[in-house]
Amino acid sequence: MVQVSAAERPAGAETTKWVYLFREGSADMRDLLGGKGAGVAGMTRAGLPVPPGFTITTQACNAYFANRNQFPPGMWDQVLAALRTLEQESGKRFGDPSNPLLVSVRSGAKFSMPGMMDTVLNLGLNDETVEGLARLTNNPRFAYDAYRRFVQMFGRIVLDIPAEKFDEVFEGYKRRLGAKADTDLDAEALKQITQEFKEIVRRETGKPFPSDPLEQLRLAIAAVFDSWMGKRAVDYRNFNKIPHDLGTAVNVQMMVFGNMGDDSGTGVAFSRNPETGENALYGEFLPNAQGEDVVAGIRTPLPISKMQQVWPDVYQQFRDIAHRLEQTYRDVQDMEFTVERGKLYMLQTRTGKRTAKAAVKIAVDMVQEGLISKEEAVLRVEPSHVEQLLLPRFEQKDKQAAVQAGRLLTTGIPASPGAAVGAAIFDADRAEERALKGERVILVRPETSPEDVHGMIPAEGVLTARGGKTSHAAVVARGMGKPAVVGAEALAIDLAKRTMSVGNTTIAEGDVISIDGSTGEVIAGELPKIEPRFSEERELAQILAWADEIRRLGCWANADYPRDARKARELGAEGIGLCRTEHMFMEEERLPYVQQMILSAPEAAKLLRPIRQLREQLVGDLADDTRADLERKLRQAQAAADASPAVKRYLEALDRLLEFQRSDFVGILEAMEGLPVIIRLIDPPLHEFLPSHEELLKRVVAAQATGQPAAAYAEDAALLAAVESMREQNPMLGLRGIRLGILYPEIIQMQTRAILEAATELAERGVETRPEIMIPLVGDVAELRAVRRELEPVAREVTAKASKAVHYKFGTMIEIPRAALTAGQIASEAEFFSFGTNDLTQTTYGFSRDDAEAKFLAYYMDQKLLPVSPFQVLDRAGVGKLMMMAVQDGRATRQDLEVGICGEHGGDPSSIEFCHQIGLDYVSASPYRVPVARLAAAQAAIRHAGSEKDR
Amino acid sequence: MVQVSAAERPAGAETTKWVYLFREGSADMRDLLGGKGAGVAGMTRAGLPVPPGFTITTQACNAYFANRNQFPPGMWDQVLAALRTLEQESGKRFGDPSNPLLVSVRSGAKFSMPGMMDTVLNLGLNDETVEGLARLTNNPRFAYDAYRRFVQMFGRIVLDIPAEKFDEVFEGYKRRLGAKADTDLDAEALKQITQEFKEIVRRETGKPFPSDPLEQLRLAIAAVFDSWMGKRAVDYRNFNKIPHDLGTAVNVQMMVFGNMGDDSGTGVAFSRNPETGENALYGEFLPNAQGEDVVAGIRTPLPISKMQQVWPDVYQQFRDIAHRLEQTYRDVQDMEFTVERGKLYMLQTRTGKRTAKAAVKIAVDMVQEGLISKEEAVLRVEPSHVEQLLLPRFEQKDKQAAVQAGRLLTTGIPASPGAAVGAAIFDADRAEERALKGERVILVRPETSPEDVHGMIPAEGVLTARGGKTSHAAVVARGMGKPAVVGAEALAIDLAKRTMSVGNTTIAEGDVISIDGSTGEVIAGELPKIEPRFSEERELAQILAWADEIRRLGCWANADYPRDARKARELGAEGIGLCRTEHMFMEEERLPYVQQMILSAPEAAKLLRPIRQLREQLVGDLADDTRADLERKLRQAQAAADASPAVKRYLEALDRLLEFQRSDFVGILEAMEGLPVIIRLIDPPLHEFLPSHEELLKRVVAAQATGQPAAAYAEDAALLAAVESMREQNPMLGLRGIRLGILYPEIIQMQTRAILEAATELAERGVETRPEIMIPLVGDVAELRAVRRELEPVAREVTAKASKAVHYKFGTMIEIPRAALTAGQIASEAEFFSFGTNDLTQTTYGFSRDDAEAKFLAYYMDQKLLPVSPFQVLDRAGVGKLMMMAVQDGRATRQDLEVGICGEHGGDPSSIEFCHQIGLDYVSASPYRVPVARLAAAQAAIRHAGSEKDR
Repeated sequence: MVQVSAAERPAGAETTKWVYLFREGSADMRDLLGGKGAGVAGMTRAGLPVPPGFTITTQACNAYFANRNQFPPGMWDQVLAALRTLEQESGKRFGDPSNPLLVSVRSGAKFSMPGMMDTVLNLGLNDETVEGLARLTNNPRFAYDAYRRFVQMFGRIVLDIPAEKFDEVFEGYKRRLGAKADTDLDAEALKQITQEFKEIVRRETGKPFPSDPLEQLRLAIAAVFDSWMGKRAVDYRNFNKIPHDLGTAVNVQMMVFGNMGDDSGTGVAFSRNPETGENALYGEFLPNAQGEDVVAGIRTPLPISKMQQVWPDVYQQFRDIAHRLEQTYRDVQDMEFTVERGKLYMLQTRTGKRTAKAAVKIAVDMVQEGLISKEEAVLRVEPSHVEQLLLPRFEQKDKQAAVQAGRLLTTGIPASPGAAVGAAIFDADRAEERALKGERVILVRPETSPEDVHGMIPAEGVLTARGGKTSHAAVVARGMGKPAVVGAEALAIDLAKRTMSVGNTTIAEGDVISIDGSTGEVIAGELPKIEPRFSEERELAQILAWADEIRRLGCWANADYPRDARKARELGAEGIGLCRTEHMFMEEERLPYVQQMILSAPEAAKLLRPIRQLREQLVGDLADDTRADLERKLRQAQAAADASPAVKRYLEALDRLLEFQRSDFVGILEAMEGLPVIIRLIDPPLHEFLPSHEELLKRVVAAQATGQPAAAYAEDAALLAAVESMREQNPMLGLRGIRLGILYPEIIQMQTRAILEAATELAERGVETRPEIMIPLVGDVAELRAVRRELEPVAREVTAKASKAVHYKFGTMIEIPRAALTAGQIASEAEFFSFGTNDLTQTTYGFSRDDAEAKFLAYYMDQKLLPVSPFQVLDRAGVGKLMMMAVQDGRATRQDLEVGICGEHGGDPSSIEFCHQIGLDYVSASPYRVPVARLAAAQAAIRHAGSEKDR
Repeated sequence: MVQVSAAERPAGAETTKWVYLFREGSADMRDLLGGKGAGVAGMTRAGLPVPPGFTITTQACNAYFANRNQFPPGMWDQVLAALRTLEQESGKRFGDPSNPLLVSVRSGAKFSMPGMMDTVLNLGLNDETVEGLARLTNNPRFAYDAYRRFVQMFGRIVLDIPAEKFDEVFEGYKRRLGAKADTDLDAEALKQITQEFKEIVRRETGKPFPSDPLEQLRLAIAAVFDSWMGKRAVDYRNFNKIPHDLGTAVNVQMMVFGNMGDDSGTGVAFSRNPETGENALYGEFLPNAQGEDVVAGIRTPLPISKMQQVWPDVYQQFRDIAHRLEQTYRDVQDMEFTVERGKLYMLQTRTGKRTAKAAVKIAVDMVQEGLISKEEAVLRVEPSHVEQLLLPRFEQKDKQAAVQAGRLLTTGIPASPGAAVGAAIFDADRAEERALKGERVILVRPETSPEDVHGMIPAEGVLTARGGKTSHAAVVARGMGKPAVVGAEALAIDLAKRTMSVGNTTIAEGDVISIDGSTGEVIAGELPKIEPRFSEERELAQILAWADEIRRLGCWANADYPRDARKARELGAEGIGLCRTEHMFMEEERLPYVQQMILSAPEAAKLLRPIRQLREQLVGDLADDTRADLERKLRQAQAAADASPAVKRYLEALDRLLEFQRSDFVGILEAMEGLPVIIRLIDPPLHEFLPSHEELLKRVVAAQATGQPAAAYAEDAALLAAVESMREQNPMLGLRGIRLGILYPEIIQMQTRAILEAATELAERGVETRPEIMIPLVGDVAELRAVRRELEPVAREVTAKASKAVHYKFGTMIEIPRAALTAGQIASEAEFFSFGTNDLTQTTYGFSRDDAEAKFLAYYMDQKLLPVSPFQVLDRAGVGKLMMMAVQDGRATRQDLEVGICGEHGGDPSSIEFCHQIGLDYVSASPYRVPVARLAAAQAAIRHAGSEKDR
């Protein structure tokens, strides 16, 4: 199974140092010694009580793989030498029955990593040394328990034998002997069990259990190395983008025993509370126990504060050490310790994981304690922490009430944060169908696959019975920013019956459930969702205030309505980066006029076009007869237009929409008084405002098939014909954005008029506004030039009426590759650029956002062809390259060009970092992501402070 | 109207030379003197008999506009000085009744340009000088005729008075006096007419006709300048991309008279035949006439050869001059001359326009005569000439027969070359409708507008009654490469009756007509279209052979079938740059299997996927139990697949298609023996192979509405559901290309197998092949890596069976922006790149090719927002920039990367030039465009020979 032949190889004249005694290493050697190795080295150096040991380097691990899974030359000799030092320091000897040295063997990569081999304790025991241990400790039960644990652990972890095989035997003994707890088994029973365990090993591996302690050590070291390339570890690294060539270190450390009596024990503790951030020791300990007892949850540990009563001196010493470690590492420490016969040993220390709330409080406290700088505090808080604090959530009291009422079904793995409530639906098709009808649904599946994605998209949240944090459901839900609980294994899902049950509780399809993606709780029935109260998050506000001092990027928000704008401002937005005018078009009272405008536009525009052109020609010096001729033609064109019902309907619709839009803009501009508001002119393909082609077709075909008179469905038929004439094969690449403005300038003239009339009205009322008019989908500077020629006169005319100056800008979205590629030209006609990275990603990849996710993108992510959806995290290599070019070329043309981003990437931390790096002026995100953006922007500024200077 | 105030301005100390006597200029001063000015200067210098004169520079024209339409300081004084020289040289004086100097005034820009002011003759006449002229020539009729012509011309051209005003009066006189020809009017009548003409001028301009010759000259010069900025001239320059700041020169030249008796005359002639290229004088002359008589076609001129009999000495002198000019300019000359009382004057010479046939013959002849080099010959032939020679055309004899049968309806303006035959349809909607039913149609409209484009797209050709070479119909048809005749004004189109008529002939809608876009002929009924006989074009073959020696770019062809491949090879193709496998799928006997494959693919692929993945995991060293476990899972997966009807249908369809495709590839590879053949794996969205969604929907809805039992339409309903599940919002950006290959690797494995089995079979038969397998739509190197991992084993397995080596390559299309942006990475997995510029243009612009043209692109071109469709001529600023990056980054990764283009731009000369410049290895175009590409590639090599060395 595991090949260890290094010992047989000639050692050669190798000079590489593969092995470091703890006292030879230091805390900053994480690359070489791994996190654990560097931690114990640091503690050893600091004079803390650490059991002696040594670390085999990550370099040795890489050499092992390069050497076709053989220890590199010289390594084993160095291990033997280090072992001799350990023997000298401890006064014990490895494999010596009279005074045996026992060691633990642990993996330790640079980053803490699930899926790696954890720990083998008590290594060095065999049938002889166990007797010596019994004699020395005068405690045969302890010795045989240690031996039993060792064989079991070694068998399971190093030799890969399923745990059940050992558990069956152990439980069988307990049953037969009527033992309730493990501690009820006596030395003799444990001795027999150990022999049976060794039999299991012989049966499973075909070889006897290795009794030579050096052989045990060799196998354990190789097993640690091998676990680095185990499937789970590789998957984890792929998912977390950790390079595969870091390698893992191996830590070999003298055993100390917490189970040597009531003056012994073991525990784990944080230097501060990782739930709340409170500055007090937090953790638990268990007298007369070894670490695995705590982990296994066989006995209930005591809170750490109790230790003060049990072992006051040890407690005091531990508290001092915790404080010292915090001062050394300048962060919360997560520590493991053992007390052997009254003596405290520190086994490990590492930076403590913490909740969002704790992260924020600890960061703020540590600044106030003078331990860290504001910059460090800002870096200590993850953007995801901010996000979590601002996501809708369930109230603790509601949850508790539900638990008390027996409605907590189970707690699964929290895979994507946030609270979701909806009808449990067990099939993606039905989930999609019911969601499309407006119902809130939660998709519940044993596990998900790409075939389920179309049901995940419209669901409120996702719940699965199988899979972990990197399962399909988890990855895809996180990618979509949708709450998910996965691996809720207690759920018995019956797809045929469309139910799921836990114990006696059964949830039928359609029953409402609530899931908390931040905690993993699954609750029957509806819990009220609570919007976060930003103003109450005092410490978060402090972190963000520091972030605001540090960041260079502006943080704006995308908002279509005054209420969103006000929310955004409350959350710190410094402007509106995208106000979509067409969302206003969709409102019920307006849609009829929008449709009237669209349906009359083609014919009306054709009649109005010559009028516009003739008017243009009439400007400037003209010969009298030329002027007369043009005027005559103008009168004719005007008469033709006046006689056209289409023109009448078109202009009437535009007039009505002007009223609506003006009042919309008054609202949003007033809400953002003094701040810039970028308003985008009409963008989507017009058919989006019209009834569905398919529905109309069905109605007309059905009417025809049943022989109804033509008059009965004439209206549908006419509408169908109109919709048909506007249909496009690929509407995303069709008549949209500025193309509409060029064909139907009256529409965007109306919008420009509405915006600037609103600004003028507010100016008269003393409200200062900064409207910026954004023209979407430009691909060539000629388009922008043509449209500005239509809009500038309107703008001048409207603002000329104001008694105060009304400032405005014209600019464009950069959202198709050609705009980025020709940005230098486009900047000559644009006062600002805003990257529409949703569309830019679409065209740069050739991915239709409407379809790609369900049709193939989810499968791509599943197959690791893409690490993450480029619609979530900005693709730097492709889309980013275009952006970089556009910023450079645009600014080369117009030095004061304002450049920002309004695609959904504007709220994604990695994308924000990139926007900082390429020198954008601001990012714009949905209001609730503004705080995330503020933090991410500050972090980017700190991380790239050096390169900032170079720019 | 025209402001001339320069004379009143102080001349200042200007030193700029605004005016050049002919003898001060030279033939190479086109920039400053314009084409005409440089031509007469050259002739003057060469000692040819040119009437003396001077040229006002293009620089003066620009200064005039910069000076707010005033002559620049000093210019008028220089004109007066030059005039004095003219007076001295001619012995006559301007405005002197005793011996008046008369001059012509002509515009002359660097490039010959319609829409510019042409010529005012006889300037200097007034009521006094006309008397002197009559006395001196002893020919009052001649003098008054000259005066009459001058006033008329000046009024029309300089003073902008409509020509009809003069024509009415003139025709009135002729009628009243019973004069049949102009020459029937006597001196007295002409005198009266002249006075009436002057009255017209007074009436129309409010001022008397200017009698001061200097005033006449000033006005005429200003009018020439003004015409540079006239609408037609500006439009023409915009269309032809001629800069607006070139300016026009003004040529003032002493008048000579061809109408002074039978020993006088005028003519135009080419130094060689511009129709056939034959090396013989070609042209016509008219005794006793002035130039405009020839142009107006009032009298029928005589062929130039007749001049030998009439004036043998003059003929001999003219022939010598023609020869000398050809030697000087090293090209065919188009000359104007006048004979005044037996003395020959050369008025103008310029490079002669010629037909395609003549261009080719003249170029070849001139090389053989030692007059020009092969490179010059290659540059003398336009790519459009080659195209024209290779377009389907009508046979001359068929045309003559039609003319004799009275079937020639009219001859319009030839606007887009080629022959077209089809039913005349008078409305775009009906044209589209009938064309979609498979009928060949010709869209006939009074004129076209963007609303007609959807009817132009499927039409064979376009015919309009109005508009010129830059009209909407002409521009759009040329853009589409579709034959068009425009401005056929003789056609009376009655849209209401759906007819068109010429004289007594009426063509009703649906009647077949034939149009020749190369000549403008419109013929009733069907003429047989003749494919060009390339092998018979001996001189073209010679030019192309020279081109082949010169060019660096390879010229390949796009071909899907063996017959196309053979054709391409005959036309000089050196490889197949694009063979589309899916076209083969569309054939009748295959489509059912293709549909079977598509409909079973989603389910089958899901079942086959684990088998593939488990097989991959089973490769390499594995622990025995791991292997056993994987083998067990593999057996289970295999059993599940074996039990699935979908898998059965899928594999069965793939097997059948393998047979078909293998024989297809044998055919095309054999046809291209020894040459590379790039075969593209399946590319289009799958729904393109399935029945129309709309049709199925209509059938099912109708069946449901009429209450048919479900069983009656179950098949349609099932198919509808399948088609619906594959539908996409934007199929162009959807599940296509490599995305299909990743989801359904079995399909591309089948295709790869078919290609290489074909190559292997041919290798066994001793036929050397060079297949290159092209994977479309790659956006990220990970996609390509994944697909190559599926295909390489198939390729190795198949080719391993061959007894001879079978060489093949894997490569990719660069057709989405991200592929170009990350080409450096992609080249690590691709042995060749082929730019798919159709798709690349789509995504770079965000234009759907299916819709854009009809929905807005035609309007864009109409409004000059785009000079030409980017689907026709490669957009260098955007798409080209991406290509340039891709070539550089790709070659940086893989030095020997083969790079070509297979989009339709591969046959467009401007695009080919760009491909040469950025260093592509080859261009690939449709077979008939290969000769065009060969020529264009050679021209690019010649034009960029300097920069070539720098690369």
